[in-house]
Amino acid sequence: MKRQIAVLGASGYAGGELIRLVDDHPDMELAYLGAHTKAGATLGAVHPHLRGADRELGPLDPAAVRGVDLAFLALPHGASAEPAMALLARGVKVADLGSDFRLDSVDRYEAAYGAPHPYPAELGKWPYGLPEFFGKHLVGADRAAVPGCYPTSALLALGPLFAEGLLEGGPFVVDSVSGVSGAGRGAKESLMFGAIDEGVAAYGVLTHRHRPEMEQGLAAVGTTEPRVMFTPHLVPMQRGILSTCYAPVAAGVTEMDVSAAFRTWYATTPFVDVVSEPPNTRWIVGTNRALVNPHLDTRTRSVVVVAAIDNLLKGAAGQAVQCANLMLGLDETAGLPTAGWMP
Amino acid sequence: MKRQIAVLGASGYAGGELIRLVDDHPDMELAYLGAHTKAGATLGAVHPHLRGADRELGPLDPAAVRGVDLAFLALPHGASAEPAMALLARGVKVADLGSDFRLDSVDRYEAAYGAPHPYPAELGKWPYGLPEFFGKHLVGADRAAVPGCYPTSALLALGPLFAEGLLEGGPFVVDSVSGVSGAGRGAKESLMFGAIDEGVAAYGVLTHRHRPEMEQGLAAVGTTEPRVMFTPHLVPMQRGILSTCYAPVAAGVTEMDVSAAFRTWYATTPFVDVVSEPPNTRWIVGTNRALVNPHLDTRTRSVVVVAAIDNLLKGAAGQAVQCANLMLGLDETAGLPTAGWMP
Amino acid sequence: MKRQIAVLGASGYAGGELIRLVDDHPDMELAYLGAHTKAGATLGAVHPHLRGADRELGPLDPAAVRGVDLAFLALPHGASAEPAMALLARGVKVADLGSDFRLDSVDRYEAAYGAPHPYPAELGKWPYGLPEFFGKHLVGADRAAVPGCYPTSALLALGPLFAEGLLEGGPFVVDSVSGVSGAGRGAKESLMFGAIDEGVAAYGVLTHRHRPEMEQGLAAVGTTEPRVMFTPHLVPMQRGILSTCYAPVAAGVTEMDVSAAFRTWYATTPFVDVVSEPPNTRWIVGTNRALVNPHLDTRTRSVVVVAAIDNLLKGAAGQAVQCANLMLGLDETAGLPTAGWMP
Amino acid sequence: MKRQIAVLGASGYAGGELIRLVDDHPDMELAYLGAHTKAGATLGAVHPHLRGADRELGPLDPAAVRGVDLAFLALPHGASAEPAMALLARGVKVADLGSDFRLDSVDRYEAAYGAPHPYPAELGKWPYGLPEFFGKHLVGADRAAVPGCYPTSALLALGPLFAEGLLEGGPFVVDSVSGVSGAGRGAKESLMFGAIDEGVAAYGVLTHRHRPEMEQGLAAVGTTEPRVMFTPHLVPMQRGILSTCYAPVAAGVTEMDVSAAFRTWYATTPFVDVVSEPPNTRWIVGTNRALVNPHLDTRTRSVVVVAAIDNLLKGAAGQAVQCANLMLGLDETAGLPTAGWMP
Repeated sequence: MKRQIAVLGASGYAGGELIRLVDDHPDMELAYLGAHTKAGATLGAVHPHLRGADRELGPLDPAAVRGVDLAFLALPHGASAEPAMALLARGVKVADLGSDFRLDSVDRYEAAYGAPHPYPAELGKWPYGLPEFFGKHLVGADRAAVPGCYPTSALLALGPLFAEGLLEGGPFVVDSVSGVSGAGRGAKESLMFGAIDEGVAAYGVLTHRHRPEMEQGLAAVGTTEPRVMFTPHLVPMQRGILSTCYAPVAAGVTEMDVSAAFRTWYATTPFVDVVSEPPNTRWIVGTNRALVNPHLDTRTRSVVVVAAIDNLLKGAAGQAVQCANLMLGLDETAGLPTAGWMP
Repeated sequence: MKRQIAVLGASGYAGGELIRLVDDHPDMELAYLGAHTKAGATLGAVHPHLRGADRELGPLDPAAVRGVDLAFLALPHGASAEPAMALLARGVKVADLGSDFRLDSVDRYEAAYGAPHPYPAELGKWPYGLPEFFGKHLVGADRAAVPGCYPTSALLALGPLFAEGLLEGGPFVVDSVSGVSGAGRGAKESLMFGAIDEGVAAYGVLTHRHRPEMEQGLAAVGTTEPRVMFTPHLVPMQRGILSTCYAPVAAGVTEMDVSAAFRTWYATTPFVDVVSEPPNTRWIVGTNRALVNPHLDTRTRSVVVVAAIDNLLKGAAGQAVQCANLMLGLDETAGLPTAGWMP
Repeated sequence: MKRQIAVLGASGYAGGELIRLVDDHPDMELAYLGAHTKAGATLGAVHPHLRGADRELGPLDPAAVRGVDLAFLALPHGASAEPAMALLARGVKVADLGSDFRLDSVDRYEAAYGAPHPYPAELGKWPYGLPEFFGKHLVGADRAAVPGCYPTSALLALGPLFAEGLLEGGPFVVDSVSGVSGAGRGAKESLMFGAIDEGVAAYGVLTHRHRPEMEQGLAAVGTTEPRVMFTPHLVPMQRGILSTCYAPVAAGVTEMDVSAAFRTWYATTPFVDVVSEPPNTRWIVGTNRALVNPHLDTRTRSVVVVAAIDNLLKGAAGQAVQCANLMLGLDETAGLPTAGWMP
Repeated sequence: MKRQIAVLGASGYAGGELIRLVDDHPDMELAYLGAHTKAGATLGAVHPHLRGADRELGPLDPAAVRGVDLAFLALPHGASAEPAMALLARGVKVADLGSDFRLDSVDRYEAAYGAPHPYPAELGKWPYGLPEFFGKHLVGADRAAVPGCYPTSALLALGPLFAEGLLEGGPFVVDSVSGVSGAGRGAKESLMFGAIDEGVAAYGVLTHRHRPEMEQGLAAVGTTEPRVMFTPHLVPMQRGILSTCYAPVAAGVTEMDVSAAFRTWYATTPFVDVVSEPPNTRWIVGTNRALVNPHLDTRTRSVVVVAAIDNLLKGAAGQAVQCANLMLGLDETAGLPTAGWMP
């Protein structure tokens, strides 16, 4: 029998992708769709590109979620904690796409968000949902904090090198460009077509909250905690993140060391591939794949590693389903697309 | 009487902008348009958006350029040297938008281009056409090597800090995104709408020839030569470069030092402004302006400086006209737009 | 001395273009900027691409507009009537970019807008600001109703043929695509980058209020009133309207008749050109030009006429300045750009 | 056992989509990939977004196609006839995405293409592959001429009304906008990002070869042959066709008649839906669906019908697979996506 699935936050971009993936999943079935302002609307009115247009969206209320094995939460920051705890208490597994449970300590959380956490005892208890690095903690787990989109790309780019001790010094630089879907679906003047098309800008310089998540993630696979400088940019496209990462290497590190580190970590990962030319995000948009392209600069004794993901799939809904597959004892790859379309 | 101007390489994107700027210039007049494969065509067939559609393009032959005070060369790499020398010999001033005369030594040139220069004695004799830093060498000069688009943005971002001794260590990181016009007008499968739209990719990782130009430019205003890591990316838009630059600061450097350095260098520059929020390239597209936005990261003892220019104007044709104004004894700002349009 | 100009509705897209055009106009000077919700803001905060960033926006209050020769109103539908009448009463000429005074009778107005007009006696008194057809009514006038963007394109395409009696029967079809700036700057989910990019849709099918304006405009140059079917579409670009218009021709009409009609009407118009291949909107974006491209289909005894304009210039702010030039006794072309930029 | 499939013309856009669809098809298996200039390349080099990157492309030679049940031909105009006949002679079914066999008479073919057909006796023998209208001819057939993208949209929009006798007079107008992928993958200056982005233009006005195909298709479902005026436009997006079609209705036709006609024809079609608001192409991009949105204009006694398809799927590769499903006795819907993604 198929696992019964709820999506809370069904009306946003990540919610739409979760619905599409679950609808196509061989072992999952959508049992509940919950939304905030769009509760009461039909799916067709909210996501006209999906099947099952006459399905109705219910409220976000966890008590309305019945007979469900796992719930995906695709909610704004701060809105996940309450429903997550309520669902867990009712025996529903939770994969949270939000940032509420990603940071693993009160100190880190308060430094990033400038406010106390409503459930401080939970921090550190949620496996970080990057299966390539933390898959063993996810198998059978009842909860997972699905990583942010930018940290996913940065950790896939730098994690193997850092874990193998090939990087030292710093700060590391993570310079990312993202399609606009990462900024969400809510109407804002700054995200209008007229404001976005034909222009590029950085935002959140030095202050973006994905930076602590990157440092924590690297620390978790290495032996120290590096400092990261992170600058995200919005570019005029719908989807895709390309992160270009720079880090100094330890003395004596060679091209072979770099290759070996990536081979060690990604030899058997179904969604991450190391490629020999700089990837275009189009190559993986629409899929759960990540492409990683490393370069050793012997002149500056540094690496440049470029990583490409689809911010709504490997950076959100796809990775959440990958986590859920592990949490539910399914095949890690079930229901996840690996071929997109071009052009 | 207006100065008589030639544009060689009239059919490309930079050529089109040169024609538009000279047509609107109060003290310049177009006397000759030269093109390679498009010789014989009318301007209207080549640039349907410009005035004077019935003007005819002549050959690139310098001997056809008569009665001209200054020639702009907007030609592919390697194609400038011969016509430049021929024009200079005939008493025509030359502003070269190409890269033939930018590097200032045989060593640097051969390292970058892997081939000998046809006029090695010329290297080092061409003022580098970044008026904000080297304006005094350009006044009245008979030749100028107009900078590359990426170096213009990187030098405007890091030059003042490096000149004032606020940066040390390194390597510096210059991570740039560019509109596609920077790649030129010639038909290539990789530049088709189908290949570019909705995707982002890095290119020329560690090998782009604008990197030595950045290092040389910084060395020219400082006391040492820094190492730079440079990664350009193409994003799906027509115009604009945004360079996000990272560099470690010397001990004790404060926000006030950073501000003071930019104030010192840009207090009176008509086209460069320091801004307090990350600029969108749209704010300056269509103009000769550059916007620079510095941030000091006390946590990592580094700066992040974001710079925005229009790659075809301040990064090419606009800067060339700015140079030509100085070479011809005109007002530096004559004929150069400072307000664009949105959306 | 320069004519003193006010722009009411300075914060929108058309308002921004009006400011840019007046700033560059040899015979006009901006004396007042008024806005609704953005009153109190600086120009730099509202239009970061313009010069004079420290100019402050005042309220929309006509009483605040002093010492002004002419006011441009770039306000939402229904918001022009009151300030227009107040300004006229104070001796200020008014060029209204809105639709309040375009329709020339109470019947037409009420049919289109389903509500009574606040100043019904004014309807029919406002010259329709399409100088190519109605220029003589605009010279020295104290008021002008600047046409809608779609009607401008449709009337320039079909007007000469209809005026010369070459069209008969019908309905005529006007099928238009527009850049998104035509929908205004206010934040709406339907105009987000995520909603617009990579998709096309029709809107206002059979109900768009520019249709009556087209029929009225044709009737004004012809001897009957044709019926028009009009379908506008939004396409993912910032600017530009392309209208493809279809109409049956009268018996015996030849290619020479078609050519002669356009020659008669556009031989001396400074901004309208008849072209022999289908124009790309890029050729005229950023200018006040219109390109018209007629085809006679002998097989179906119909014409297809394609017309291209920049919806914010010839379709709004540029045409308003063209009208104002005539109203103020200036050269019709003063301050209006005729060369744009590509790419 | 799965049906063995060949794709000739594997390197183009339609070829890439055919490969993706067949790879995901439950009852088909790719047995051969053939290409012209890209023969010898790996699939990964040609379509980096697809799975099975190490598969090699062979030559177009029909003799190389062995053990195959059906071949898709995705070749330029004129290149299909020879391999199609050779494959049929070898017992391989052929679904031709090209235009070689679409027109059903020598007269029609020569009028459209101005040249004799190499196999004139074949004309009229190829079922026209629009399953919604001609499905019964496709079941079990050994050949099919898959319709052009524009005719698919126009016929789905007007076919039911014409078949039911609701339309009369004319000409009918088909005004279409298309994403750029319809123009193919070959490098051309006119299809560069710099030429396409931010602009719209008509092309092939009155001369496009899809017009005769529309007239023939309507004639095949009706009792007369209407005249069509067809204007295609390229808009800056990758995929999607939106056709806005205008036609006069017969006396007495009501809204109910219009609705009934569409209900009659599309009540059970799995891929065509009649919708009540104008569709955005994004709603169906990535799918084999078509959305049709009719409006009756009682004022002009005409209909406007808007139809949206993905030009590479329902307009090419998807429809080809739909045909192949019928030709091979499979379920018509097998392997065809009905949910896309947004944004």
